[in-house]
Amino acid sequence: MTKKAVLLLSGGLDSATVFAIAKAHGYEIYALSFRYGQRHAIELEAASHVAKALGAKEHKIAEIDLRLFGGSALTANIDVPKHNAVSEIGEGIPVTYVPARNTIFLSFALAWAEVLGAFDIFIGVNALDYSGYPDCRPEFIEAFEVMANKATAYAIDAKQRISIHTPLINMSKAQIIRKGLELGVDYDLTISCYDPTSDGKPCGKCDSCLLRAMGFHENKIIDVAN
Amino acid sequence: MTKKAVLLLSGGLDSATVFAIAKAHGYEIYALSFRYGQRHAIELEAASHVAKALGAKEHKIAEIDLRLFGGSALTANIDVPKHNAVSEIGEGIPVTYVPARNTIFLSFALAWAEVLGAFDIFIGVNALDYSGYPDCRPEFIEAFEVMANKATAYAIDAKQRISIHTPLINMSKAQIIRKGLELGVDYDLTISCYDPTSDGKPCGKCDSCLLRAMGFHENKIIDVAN
Repeated sequence: MTKKAVLLLSGGLDSATVFAIAKAHGYEIYALSFRYGQRHAIELEAASHVAKALGAKEHKIAEIDLRLFGGSALTANIDVPKHNAVSEIGEGIPVTYVPARNTIFLSFALAWAEVLGAFDIFIGVNALDYSGYPDCRPEFIEAFEVMANKATAYAIDAKQRISIHTPLINMSKAQIIRKGLELGVDYDLTISCYDPTSDGKPCGKCDSCLLRAMGFHENKIIDVAN
Repeated sequence: MTKKAVLLLSGGLDSATVFAIAKAHGYEIYALSFRYGQRHAIELEAASHVAKALGAKEHKIAEIDLRLFGGSALTANIDVPKHNAVSEIGEGIPVTYVPARNTIFLSFALAWAEVLGAFDIFIGVNALDYSGYPDCRPEFIEAFEVMANKATAYAIDAKQRISIHTPLINMSKAQIIRKGLELGVDYDLTISCYDPTSDGKPCGKCDSCLLRAMGFHENKIIDVAN
């Protein structure tokens, strides 16, 4: 029997790679994206293309407007920081951090997983070449997994453990790209930029664009999409 | 300095009582309600009345349509069970359970708490006279609290612990009502029914109506609202 998995799909390169990895492990993928008031909502088009290209069983987009709370450069009127190189990316937690975003995303994934009877949830968090977000760290994921197993009726009834899978957590951006290319991911479908232009072109200078560029550069590959 | 707290406010009697308790402890209340596709959306009007009557500093209603996933009598086309007495309420987890609902609600509360810099979150869960929901149990709340402290930048930066307060967790429905009356809660503003009529009247036979009736009866008080 094919195992069902819920996968958080952003339209960026990390979650596309996780998709390919989960698929290679034989999971049937239920992809979940969010329109959360992000300034880079164009990533949702990319998510749809990735879901289609990689063969999602279903792709849902949840509407949750986090502009209700603000508090981030991605959901409020705060400028996204721009740099010329990865080495210029500041220390500490950047203003692109969205309060409790991964907690909210994983909670929705958990709700869908329970309705589907799926015990596996995949998320593309990464604790190496990342932006310093607290909710990308392994200790957060572990604590969420413990909580998820106490939160839901199906985990208690089935006596089966819910797992939050983070296959990228210890990979560099270059390793992630290499892995995805091996598995046939078409990165041209993805977009990583936090602050794209009005016609959907990446800015090339936000943290996310710079980390992506570094990953492609280290693999000596030209990034057509970004 | 007044301490800020985020409070999950449903429009029912439990969360109104929690509001009064938190206020009595000196907290400034930021009340959060959800339009989640529930069939009893009339509870949001009740929530607004309670927020006003008890003096919320702010009241936000988040729009998160959980009909996207379904899987519950409250968000899908499944009948709400009706009974004639509390003793008839079935064993096990009822179909009114909404998968991961409190996880999602608390995640949103956490997001707002982080933006506000509030370290206290109040929720009216109750493990005695309740409907058997897994996400109303103390072990779930404790696991959520642990997770919340690993999920957010402000808890890490401030080295201050986020607390999830559940003042009703070990109280019977009758005790909750007695406490609320002592603190001046006007229960006529609240509605507890899972399946109200089209003109907003409680059905009187769902688990929530029956538990409420029992609580008023044990206090020898007439419930005008339900």
